[in-house]
Amino acid sequence: MDRPLVAIDWGTSSLRGARLDAQAGVLEERAFARGILSVAAGGFAAVFDELFGDWMQPPGTLALIAGMAGSRQGWIEVPYRACPAGLADVAQALAWVAPGRIAIVPGLSCERAGVPDVMRGEETQVFGALKLLGIDAGTLVLPGTHSKWVRVEAGRVVDFTTLMTGEFYALLRRHSILARTLPDDDGGFDTPAFDAGIAHALRSPGLLQSAFSARTLALFERQPLAQRPSYLSGLVIGEELRTRALRGGERVVVIGADALTQRYVRALATLGVHVTAVGAPAAWRGLFEMAHGIEP
Amino acid sequence: MDRPLVAIDWGTSSLRGARLDAQAGVLEERAFARGILSVAAGGFAAVFDELFGDWMQPPGTLALIAGMAGSRQGWIEVPYRACPAGLADVAQALAWVAPGRIAIVPGLSCERAGVPDVMRGEETQVFGALKLLGIDAGTLVLPGTHSKWVRVEAGRVVDFTTLMTGEFYALLRRHSILARTLPDDDGGFDTPAFDAGIAHALRSPGLLQSAFSARTLALFERQPLAQRPSYLSGLVIGEELRTRALRGGERVVVIGADALTQRYVRALATLGVHVTAVGAPAAWRGLFEMAHGIEP
Repeated sequence: MDRPLVAIDWGTSSLRGARLDAQAGVLEERAFARGILSVAAGGFAAVFDELFGDWMQPPGTLALIAGMAGSRQGWIEVPYRACPAGLADVAQALAWVAPGRIAIVPGLSCERAGVPDVMRGEETQVFGALKLLGIDAGTLVLPGTHSKWVRVEAGRVVDFTTLMTGEFYALLRRHSILARTLPDDDGGFDTPAFDAGIAHALRSPGLLQSAFSARTLALFERQPLAQRPSYLSGLVIGEELRTRALRGGERVVVIGADALTQRYVRALATLGVHVTAVGAPAAWRGLFEMAHGIEP
Repeated sequence: MDRPLVAIDWGTSSLRGARLDAQAGVLEERAFARGILSVAAGGFAAVFDELFGDWMQPPGTLALIAGMAGSRQGWIEVPYRACPAGLADVAQALAWVAPGRIAIVPGLSCERAGVPDVMRGEETQVFGALKLLGIDAGTLVLPGTHSKWVRVEAGRVVDFTTLMTGEFYALLRRHSILARTLPDDDGGFDTPAFDAGIAHALRSPGLLQSAFSARTLALFERQPLAQRPSYLSGLVIGEELRTRALRGGERVVVIGADALTQRYVRALATLGVHVTAVGAPAAWRGLFEMAHGIEP
């Protein structure tokens, strides 16, 4: 593809963009606190023009947008593409908001036992990570407010699962009885406390039970104040890993670049899982490959 | 025991009392929204006198108080009695706030894998339920904000587990992303939706995952608004039951008298568990037996 590409990841609370060259190299990046929840209905085109309009030169430049911009509260609602779905399936289902110039990537849906699951944006990171790693199958995890565990076969997402791990952490951290014995600020990461939380969660049958340990350890003064946020983080991430029933020697790709991702890498490593970490460029690479998918 | 007994259950947010006759019959009951969190430090004796002072006649009347009145934020902090502990052990460890007249019942603690667990008040209900049912062993559950599952052998509590089920429901109901697709009021109880929540939780590996179904079923408009609170209730109660690994034919005593308790009775029955329900009188009977335990 010879057209310049503007790659956008428009999430719930943040908006990131990159201008890519013909080899998928990043020429320039921008990030704004302009997630979709900050944009009024009907205002998306104007926000895009304001923040990325200068990148849409020369004429013929293409912009692809992944993430919540395709949700009901976004630019336009783009139907989910049902799994199994590969990069080409998604590229064919792009929703054009400016014909030939600006398109939104559809999210994916899957279904288990009559219950749907959904993602928007993560599919693009998954396809990018597969390309970056040169693989077409595996288990990939995207940690976050709503973590996604994705199973890929022959280049297609065949199944995935959402776990509300980051959101449960925030609920317990700020709104539960546990908040009363936690410091106001998370402070520094405490490795032994995090590991203790992981270990307790893994030997517990579930978070409803293991979470109470954060209260009793504080009540019995067995855990210094500064350790408690890291312990709670270990409890919820450990609970997520417990439910995945991972085997030692298994391979998992972790996608993400922040401190949270590093916690997953650490926890998975202690389980004997072989971890490959892929950072933020996964989204740009995914969009780059989709752009190629729509043009010969 | 010939002395008149005033039985008190002083919890975090409520205060209940009963005047009992010599056969443990209830002569009179009172309930107030005067939980320990509403009483300033040092103010407990005055509140007791105000609300129950008239019951302390004739001289020689005894008052026993179970619940959070013995916690750090209560009348006085009463150390937990370590398990295993029976009714006599607890009666011997009463903490007298007015010598010979008014005493507070100690809570229980137990420990598993270096992590403590605690209860205050439930031990009294358990001992009362055992007497009411004429049994000295079994599995008993006390549903609530923090549910307790208690194992009793030879009349003594040998082990128990706290699950933060009611609190997780409240967190998800009011503070999570799920709140956005839930009605403001819980409305009536919807049996099929509750059962669907139970079933989904039981076949799921954990609540981090199953909770997201409340979002996607709403997103795909597969669940009417009015059903959603009952479904979410089924999810969290089902998660609690999943972690208990119950076997069909097992016997469980459920202690409590409110609508929540009825949900547990229903859910346990669908698992093939034999359920015996014991209502609010369990606390009064427990205190009555303790009063006998301290007097020949």
